Amino acid sequence: MTARTSAESTRDIPEATVARLPVYLRALTTLSESGTITCSSEDLAQAAGVNSAKLRKDLSYLGSYGTRGVGYDVDYLRYQIAREIGVTQDWPVVIVGIGNLGHALANYSGFRSRGFRVVALLDADPTRHDEVVAGIDVRPFDDLEQIVRENGVAIGVIATPAIAAQDVADRMVACGISSILNFAATVLSVPAGVDVRKVDLSIELQILAYHEQRKAQVEPA
Amino acid sequence: MTARTSAESTRDIPEATVARLPVYLRALTTLSESGTITCSSEDLAQAAGVNSAKLRKDLSYLGSYGTRGVGYDVDYLRYQIAREIGVTQDWPVVIVGIGNLGHALANYSGFRSRGFRVVALLDADPTRHDEVVAGIDVRPFDDLEQIVRENGVAIGVIATPAIAAQDVADRMVACGISSILNFAATVLSVPAGVDVRKVDLSIELQILAYHEQRKAQVEPA
Repeated sequence: MTARTSAESTRDIPEATVARLPVYLRALTTLSESGTITCSSEDLAQAAGVNSAKLRKDLSYLGSYGTRGVGYDVDYLRYQIAREIGVTQDWPVVIVGIGNLGHALANYSGFRSRGFRVVALLDADPTRHDEVVAGIDVRPFDDLEQIVRENGVAIGVIATPAIAAQDVADRMVACGISSILNFAATVLSVPAGVDVRKVDLSIELQILAYHEQRKAQVEPA
Repeated sequence: MTARTSAESTRDIPEATVARLPVYLRALTTLSESGTITCSSEDLAQAAGVNSAKLRKDLSYLGSYGTRGVGYDVDYLRYQIAREIGVTQDWPVVIVGIGNLGHALANYSGFRSRGFRVVALLDADPTRHDEVVAGIDVRPFDDLEQIVRENGVAIGVIATPAIAAQDVADRMVACGISSILNFAATVLSVPAGVDVRKVDLSIELQILAYHEQRKAQVEPA
């Protein structure tokens, strides 16, 4: 068990900071893997693509201020952030909808390496139930409740067509899943206390388009 | 042609604001589709998941201040943001690497609806070259240069295994692609002037894990 004071466990980290912590963690992992022992806030900020004042402010919520003239200890800061996010724990995850995207997610190495363990792949289509994807059997969607109970699953991933996503979310919530990652192109309605995050694969393309448009504008006519 | 003053085309919008514009655009599209004509900054901020002061600040970079007591005209603001991002244009895109993820991306409706037109699917594996995905033939990777030239492609999507990604990026850059969306689990090195955005599908899961961990902490022991 981690020993946390109640002050620690109830303090609020701003949502925008929470969203940047995984980005810092990724940058620190890259630095660590390249043999870097300590880094300045400027180095880390550059690797993470934020400005260094924002980085220092974000890390101050974790009680991390670095050492003047030395900077941050890469591996310790990495541990602090991983603990804060919760990825030092084991998170059993189910993926529902094993089409192309579900296959890609099941095979995605970035989940396993951050503590997310895919315990089951579920699909309503009986023709998929003979498949084995990434070493895991595809099982009937109706096994959801049993799998969630047996594995203590708190996080569900929806990779179904949009039309099926709300029904899947309802069944997930009914059996105790309280965090949903939604790849379907629809807005889910869920009760208070359930977190939903929607992945929109076009957002990054739109950011690229913005810069591309500006490059075109500054080129000579 | 759009008539832009040089002041408009060279002013800088902060990167964090740029990253939120597609989120506002998505929220406005949802509001518009549900028949909403005008919305307050609070309504829009809530739909987009940001605070309303930040939203107003972001929109002020676009010269959009809303009307006191009325709010924002949903369709007009949607047009303003779409124009600012550049998604009122047609963006021809190539996808390289037609495995599960490449299939999912080729079929993803959210690209087409934002002006991103997939003009070619390329894969180095000859056994894939007979496939048709989302109505598009899979072609040899060596056709890249010809396709980019003929279609004026500026944006490339890399959905290959990590080991192939740098070579693909080098070839893309050599034939004039200046924006790359990278789904491969590797950091690409590209010359100055080329924008790369990396999609990390685990980031959203990590944000969910943070909240899930906090829910677990406040439950009675």
